[in-house]
Amino acid sequence: MVAGVFDSGVGGLTVLKSLVEAKLFEKIIYFGDTARVPYGAKDKNTIIRYSLEALEFFSNFDIDIFIVACNSASAYAIKELREVSTIPVVGVIESGVLALNQIKISKDSSILIIGTKATINSNKYINLLNKHGFYNITSKATGLFVPLVEEGIFGGAILNETLKHYFSDLKKPDIVILGCTHFPLISKEIDNYFGGVKLIHSGEAIVKYLNNNYIKESILFEQTKLEFFASENPAGLKEVANRWLF
Amino acid sequence: MVAGVFDSGVGGLTVLKSLVEAKLFEKIIYFGDTARVPYGAKDKNTIIRYSLEALEFFSNFDIDIFIVACNSASAYAIKELREVSTIPVVGVIESGVLALNQIKISKDSSILIIGTKATINSNKYINLLNKHGFYNITSKATGLFVPLVEEGIFGGAILNETLKHYFSDLKKPDIVILGCTHFPLISKEIDNYFGGVKLIHSGEAIVKYLNNNYIKESILFEQTKLEFFASENPAGLKEVANRWLF
Repeated sequence: MVAGVFDSGVGGLTVLKSLVEAKLFEKIIYFGDTARVPYGAKDKNTIIRYSLEALEFFSNFDIDIFIVACNSASAYAIKELREVSTIPVVGVIESGVLALNQIKISKDSSILIIGTKATINSNKYINLLNKHGFYNITSKATGLFVPLVEEGIFGGAILNETLKHYFSDLKKPDIVILGCTHFPLISKEIDNYFGGVKLIHSGEAIVKYLNNNYIKESILFEQTKLEFFASENPAGLKEVANRWLF
Repeated sequence: MVAGVFDSGVGGLTVLKSLVEAKLFEKIIYFGDTARVPYGAKDKNTIIRYSLEALEFFSNFDIDIFIVACNSASAYAIKELREVSTIPVVGVIESGVLALNQIKISKDSSILIIGTKATINSNKYINLLNKHGFYNITSKATGLFVPLVEEGIFGGAILNETLKHYFSDLKKPDIVILGCTHFPLISKEIDNYFGGVKLIHSGEAIVKYLNNNYIKESILFEQTKLEFFASENPAGLKEVANRWLF
């Protein structure tokens, strides 16, 4: 099976990493819309338009499944993508919620969802969690984590102050959904801040979801072939991929 | 005279504010490329392409001068814009350096230039400053200030830590060029950090430059007519304009 993975930029590489480690695909083609990144503070209609253009980009390749690795795009564009796509379209929000549902936690567990403004304002996580019987939910846009990670800040005083800025008025939750693909890179710091919580990671969640729903073969691909494309500076994307992935 | 002001997003509103306060124009049309903001971490060629598209947008209006309020666009696209434009094109970097030249400071003054990655990597400020005989220059990409300002953080612990992060290894300069239109919003904090420096602000610089080079009439327009356009969410842009400008 060949997967097409789409993200607004480099963030989706954390999802790619999980997919490679799970050995599910013979080949993965990654496209990052680096010329228009970030999506997280942009409008619904803009995000839908950009996502449809990404699907169009993949029409040049023979892929079997289209994976939206970006939470902001998953929040707004999945329905529109499915309307025009001839192959399955999988987003990280649906899979994140289903992964949570699978780990058999109490429905009373307190859940904190963090993500970009776009993802949080969409209420997509909350609505899906409600459908699965979870109601003890807080959601918070924590957009600054994105430029911090992009700037290579994975710890230290700025990150500590930013964690306080966003979380100091919150009670410790049982579960934190990392609703942005940049956040796994600071997951340890988020975990430390709260003093130990269960974290839901988009990459791990989508692997579970794919295994349950789309992967029919039991073959494991020891070496997934990878191809990288970007709407600008593909060399820069590859460089980050090398740094984050391997 | 009618001016077209172009910025990657809302940052150029600080330049617009200076233009309005200087009462130089009967009307100003502002265009923010909010659907693709920010430019500061993007490629030269992408920034040139987007800037040419902005000029194309203004071809629908009868403007007398095209003002590039974005430092990243001024760093890369002025030459290309002038090649195709039938009206004068003015950027904030040229005017910033000329403003510095006008205030009659010693050529030995130590100058710190701060801006986005794109602006700093272009070396546009340094090259122009060298031409005017300034050689005691340090330049530093301080990209995190942009999302901080966009997040409404104009002071406090996160900003303090970020100031330390960027500046703790630098000697106090005589002059700081605020090479990004977001930075005037935290100019007081930058000034305090260094304990009193001379700050060069793109908006004030461009007013001087326009007065010296393009403004022939002595009329002052007590009320500049303003029109706002954006590649997405023009209502959001107007809202920020109301908050920052008036």
